[in-house]
Amino acid sequence: MNKIAIIGATGATGLELVKLALNEGLDPKDLCLIASEKSVGKSLIIQSQSFEIKSLSSVFESSFDVIFLAAGSKVSAELKDKLSKLDCFVIDLSSKFRQNQDVPLIIPEINHEALNFKKNRFVSSPNCVTTLYLMVLAPLFKKNKAKKVILSTYQAASGAGFFAMEELKKESEAFLNDASYEHKAFQDPYAFNLFAHNAPFKDPFDNEEEIKIRQESQKILNDPDFKITATCVRVPTLRAHAISAYVEFSESIDSETIYSLLDEASGIKLCEDFSKNKFATPQNASCKNEVYYGRIRKDPTSLNCFWFWIVGDQLLKGAALNAWQIYQLKRSYETLHAHSRTTSS
Amino acid sequence: MNKIAIIGATGATGLELVKLALNEGLDPKDLCLIASEKSVGKSLIIQSQSFEIKSLSSVFESSFDVIFLAAGSKVSAELKDKLSKLDCFVIDLSSKFRQNQDVPLIIPEINHEALNFKKNRFVSSPNCVTTLYLMVLAPLFKKNKAKKVILSTYQAASGAGFFAMEELKKESEAFLNDASYEHKAFQDPYAFNLFAHNAPFKDPFDNEEEIKIRQESQKILNDPDFKITATCVRVPTLRAHAISAYVEFSESIDSETIYSLLDEASGIKLCEDFSKNKFATPQNASCKNEVYYGRIRKDPTSLNCFWFWIVGDQLLKGAALNAWQIYQLKRSYETLHAHSRTTSS
Repeated sequence: MNKIAIIGATGATGLELVKLALNEGLDPKDLCLIASEKSVGKSLIIQSQSFEIKSLSSVFESSFDVIFLAAGSKVSAELKDKLSKLDCFVIDLSSKFRQNQDVPLIIPEINHEALNFKKNRFVSSPNCVTTLYLMVLAPLFKKNKAKKVILSTYQAASGAGFFAMEELKKESEAFLNDASYEHKAFQDPYAFNLFAHNAPFKDPFDNEEEIKIRQESQKILNDPDFKITATCVRVPTLRAHAISAYVEFSESIDSETIYSLLDEASGIKLCEDFSKNKFATPQNASCKNEVYYGRIRKDPTSLNCFWFWIVGDQLLKGAALNAWQIYQLKRSYETLHAHSRTTSS
Repeated sequence: MNKIAIIGATGATGLELVKLALNEGLDPKDLCLIASEKSVGKSLIIQSQSFEIKSLSSVFESSFDVIFLAAGSKVSAELKDKLSKLDCFVIDLSSKFRQNQDVPLIIPEINHEALNFKKNRFVSSPNCVTTLYLMVLAPLFKKNKAKKVILSTYQAASGAGFFAMEELKKESEAFLNDASYEHKAFQDPYAFNLFAHNAPFKDPFDNEEEIKIRQESQKILNDPDFKITATCVRVPTLRAHAISAYVEFSESIDSETIYSLLDEASGIKLCEDFSKNKFATPQNASCKNEVYYGRIRKDPTSLNCFWFWIVGDQLLKGAALNAWQIYQLKRSYETLHAHSRTTSS
């Protein structure tokens, strides 16, 4: 059995999941695309394949190998208990259960060991910034812990979905034509503008995005005292986030060690040419699976401190690809498990 | 006498200087607009006033109260010695002489005392990021020195002049129309993209912009050991820079003290509403004289560490307005001096 349901399939992240499944050779008829009532019954053509959008009830009408929840926290909250009654592996891309003790929060390259397939049938995929920056920094922390990480982000429209991506384009067009435009995606104008990340405030000072980054990093690194602070900013780019990261390591480390550790890490790609002042940009990293890194610079004014420039596709490794890789982990586990049963019998 | 020459008057900063002079009521005939040979003889209409662009030789043919150098480092380098033979006050907006020991580097609100009108006839106005962030942070450092300042910048097109501003618009238009566009202002595409600041590298790792920020801060604060490190990024906005600043103070300080010190400082304006997640944006700060600040947040993970969000018009306080205020300082000094001569005679 290799049937997949994607809840939220018409969203920016959901569509990437569909493409990942098709690229992997999945038979389109084993793919169930689920979206909200207003889309049900409509057909959607992806990579020349036509799909009919199904309603949420479909998920309870047949059995699936995996269900991806990519429709936001509210839908995930409504479904978790119901889905837990099915014999199914669920990967949640929303933030709703990321801090639950019994829900592993997984970046396959970083902490796959936190996922126990015998026990866990509901897994969360982290916040996009958290995944992207940890892909580059976590391999270093295994060797040399961070005393502190300070991030400033340059976050693309895609984090707020298709609507924000489309609005950025339409509002920019209106701006260029001196036309008025009533923006709706964010409270601030977006065309040729930027603003503090639109996540709501729960804490008096950090917005929810900044809090997620802290809490999720601590959980993924299994270090509740891990010190990270971030300022999250929405910039007028489309689908790749950039992150300016400043790291104070707890012990001395040299550039050679950093480059060598990162060279061994998977899923990331060095992109820097100091002589040409050429480093990764959101346009380079868009639609790429790898997280790009570079501009690794020692701060000459301080001991053990380095700057990193990290850029990655928000919809891919920041969301859909990471969730897909969690599913791939599960398949590898099953293959291995089936194989060991066969050989031991 | 109140005659003013502006060298580089057709550039983005030069034009702002012309507007500042006209807004102050200067008679247009006392304003000499100088630009490169290709513009000489052309006429330029600014605020309904028509000006004929003059050649560089004009500066030696009449006498001026003040000459603004706003045509870049190369022109400033060629002119400094020649201008020093005139009985004239020169304000240089280029970076060429900012580190010269005998050239004061002035932000009037921060270090006007470093300017000695009896002695100094050539003064530099600082780099835009340096001026904007120091307007907000320097008032705090008088009370509580910084152990370290860590900046990530979100720099607008205007820092690279009119050409870059126009190209950002044209390239964005082409992008929206799926048309090809041969970008020239920067090596990276600019439409819906961002990249490491285009300043060249002299140091192996920090680009020239990042080095300017360090060296100029140390000079302005008169503290050669002042620790500051920056990552400078060009983003697709038009004329206001944003700065994400993280400050580690040397001693304990509370938010009330910070707000109260900044409330007393001039030239800056608080712009924050945490409850509405509303803070300054480049669009708010564009064409405004004040530097906007807010999102003042204590880092809960570290002692004495605070975040600041700073946004200011790059062409005004980041360049033309600061230079203009240096000229205003000089006029105040002369008025006072003339008055004291009158009263003592």
